[in-house]
Amino acid sequence: MRFRPLAGLTPVASSPTTAGGPDVTSFTLDNGLVVVVIPDRRVPVVTHMVWYRNGSADDPPLKSGIAHFLEHLMFKGTDKHPAGEFSQVVASLGGQENAFTSYDYTAYFQRVAKEHLGTMMEFEADRMSGLSFDEAVVGPERDVVLEERRMRVETDPGAQLSEALSAALYVHHPYGTPIIGWMHEIEGLTRDDALAYYRRFYTPENAILVVAGDIGADEVRALAEETYGRIAARGERPERRRPREPVLNASRRVTVADEKVEQPYLQQAFLVPSSRTQEGSESYALELLGEVLGGGQTSVLYRTLVLEKEVAVSAGAYYYGTMLDAAHFGIHAAPRPGVTLEALEAAIGEAVAQFLARGVTTEELERAKTRFVAEMVYAQDSQAHLARLYGSSLAIGESVEDVVLWPQRIEAVTADEIRAVGERYLLKGRPVSGYLEPHRA
Amino acid sequence: MRFRPLAGLTPVASSPTTAGGPDVTSFTLDNGLVVVVIPDRRVPVVTHMVWYRNGSADDPPLKSGIAHFLEHLMFKGTDKHPAGEFSQVVASLGGQENAFTSYDYTAYFQRVAKEHLGTMMEFEADRMSGLSFDEAVVGPERDVVLEERRMRVETDPGAQLSEALSAALYVHHPYGTPIIGWMHEIEGLTRDDALAYYRRFYTPENAILVVAGDIGADEVRALAEETYGRIAARGERPERRRPREPVLNASRRVTVADEKVEQPYLQQAFLVPSSRTQEGSESYALELLGEVLGGGQTSVLYRTLVLEKEVAVSAGAYYYGTMLDAAHFGIHAAPRPGVTLEALEAAIGEAVAQFLARGVTTEELERAKTRFVAEMVYAQDSQAHLARLYGSSLAIGESVEDVVLWPQRIEAVTADEIRAVGERYLLKGRPVSGYLEPHRA
Repeated sequence: MRFRPLAGLTPVASSPTTAGGPDVTSFTLDNGLVVVVIPDRRVPVVTHMVWYRNGSADDPPLKSGIAHFLEHLMFKGTDKHPAGEFSQVVASLGGQENAFTSYDYTAYFQRVAKEHLGTMMEFEADRMSGLSFDEAVVGPERDVVLEERRMRVETDPGAQLSEALSAALYVHHPYGTPIIGWMHEIEGLTRDDALAYYRRFYTPENAILVVAGDIGADEVRALAEETYGRIAARGERPERRRPREPVLNASRRVTVADEKVEQPYLQQAFLVPSSRTQEGSESYALELLGEVLGGGQTSVLYRTLVLEKEVAVSAGAYYYGTMLDAAHFGIHAAPRPGVTLEALEAAIGEAVAQFLARGVTTEELERAKTRFVAEMVYAQDSQAHLARLYGSSLAIGESVEDVVLWPQRIEAVTADEIRAVGERYLLKGRPVSGYLEPHRA
Repeated sequence: MRFRPLAGLTPVASSPTTAGGPDVTSFTLDNGLVVVVIPDRRVPVVTHMVWYRNGSADDPPLKSGIAHFLEHLMFKGTDKHPAGEFSQVVASLGGQENAFTSYDYTAYFQRVAKEHLGTMMEFEADRMSGLSFDEAVVGPERDVVLEERRMRVETDPGAQLSEALSAALYVHHPYGTPIIGWMHEIEGLTRDDALAYYRRFYTPENAILVVAGDIGADEVRALAEETYGRIAARGERPERRRPREPVLNASRRVTVADEKVEQPYLQQAFLVPSSRTQEGSESYALELLGEVLGGGQTSVLYRTLVLEKEVAVSAGAYYYGTMLDAAHFGIHAAPRPGVTLEALEAAIGEAVAQFLARGVTTEELERAKTRFVAEMVYAQDSQAHLARLYGSSLAIGESVEDVVLWPQRIEAVTADEIRAVGERYLLKGRPVSGYLEPHRA
């Protein structure tokens, strides 16, 4: 599931029957900053997020990890506020904060009582333009990141498999490079690199402010103009220069065999369109294909592999379409004891082929759509989820309308469309498989 | 064998017993152009080569194929000479010409009667600084390259496997990108791209002039100063910015299954040091490992797989160390009918492990060194080979002395050193395997 930057969050908006959804307002400040306001009057708190339209896939050559490293350095002080002060203020106000870097964006957020929104904006606007940290903090913070990588990847065979699988799937596009960066390139990142990157990408034109909570658009606008509005425009949004992934006529298998592995595991990934690269409505069909094929214990793969053939202890599929460039469709399964990963992979191939040969039943289609509706309702129940949904969608170039219409577009997908994307991308596509094994074969 | 830019040429120089080798002279013009003169008095001809220290691995992001495309455009005219004139002159003088692009360099050469060397230099110096072609030639020439790619790769499963194997081996370094470029990026190359690339890399500081033949250094110097010497220096050599390839804890397998395939085939590649990235003398030990393990029909792999176990109809290994960055060690074999590629791969693994367990015999070591000496003698017999040897070595940053001392360094390698690199890179390394199959499994 490593590929899903927002684990567990399916990009959903309003209920399909109320296309308007929440009464979301969007406007743009004079300096180019886009503002999205999502009303949520249930509790007197606000979620304040700033999204930058740059992620690890925008890291310059030889500087992998710089987006994530800069995310760390954003907590290291500005001309006005020393390192740590912003975090201390959030904590003293009883708030929460976080930040994350993904392939296509970087985001910062706080959740506080609504009367403190202005304070959050002041601090966040301050570090949008006034970041200033000493050379002295760079080395230790780089060590923190290196240690993070060591802990998360270098000692974890599953993470090593994920990295190798991504690299095998995306041989040219930077989605094949880990978000955290390659160890030896992280080691070389300097203060100058970070500041050059910051100056290039941290601009009002490149940012999206999302405020969800117990507050109206007028009040948000007034506060935003007082704070973010004072940052000078740069004239234009920084360019994102992404290579396109070639389609190789080659299936690929990546194997990590390590004595630390206790449960063998199989992953498959297929290169597919994202919501931004799709022709027609393929991305919506892929969402439902993921659900029908591998969403939960009523799915085709679970029923076939776990219940009927009894070759797996778990099985599923997923698709995360909210990507700027080519996405992937994933299948995963863990074999029962005694079943080889090769045999499991063959069984998956057979199950997928049989499913596509028979097509999607009305019952499966309706159940999948119903599950999406349920997830939407769940998403709407969470202020942070809604804020993330709008932020991530807008950060890859979708509009508020795209988010609002998403459920209708899902609802309009037919069984034939699901079968068509399955045939085109799974049957005719070249799988990239990852094998996690307890020892070297 | 696709990885070997100079197919069949082992980088060798003088005989190991005469370390001085041919009386090679090297000097640098005031504008930074390095000149190498290799005397060869046997026939009254000269080989004239210009090497640029830029190859496909220096292609800028999103511009894969530009080095090769520019090589094509270098024949499309200058301010002084229209398209095709240089080639016509070479032909009218009874000469030969060629050009090639590799990962680390691009080179142009002519072979003519010695009295025409000055004319060659005039033309070659002219297109080093005065390239000028119309927009009108760019589209058709791009079509030529696209057709070249279609013919060579898109319709050839073996070439598709090579590309996919390179991409799987080099997940980060541009050696994983085909020299000719990815189809969709070639399609986007423009006149401006080509001219920007030309201005950046085609400078006297970045070039190496190699003249081999019936001519003395003084005469070459005088001619070079009159021609190349008139090109203004740029101040410094263009920077080569290459990422380093991470070492993944993952074995990889790439499969191309296509009905056009008649003979199944297996390739393996291991990431190893090149002559430029080696610690100690590993590159020299790898040269001999390639020879002992897989050079010809007396090699370990041929004897074990073809003659003894009878699982293969051919088997071999190779190493080409003349690379600026991480090289690879290759093993290849074609199975007998009825033997699967999986079984063949297992047999290779066993043969390599058994060989490394027993070590290199004195006889094997001596035979390998003798073969290298024989190849050296052969190389010295060819003016063009010698010129290529010096040009390719200097283009990756080696010195004339490195080339001259190469045989001594090979001669000094011990059996233990060969075993050590085998254990380090083949036994403990992670293989990247390529399977070429007649149909989809």
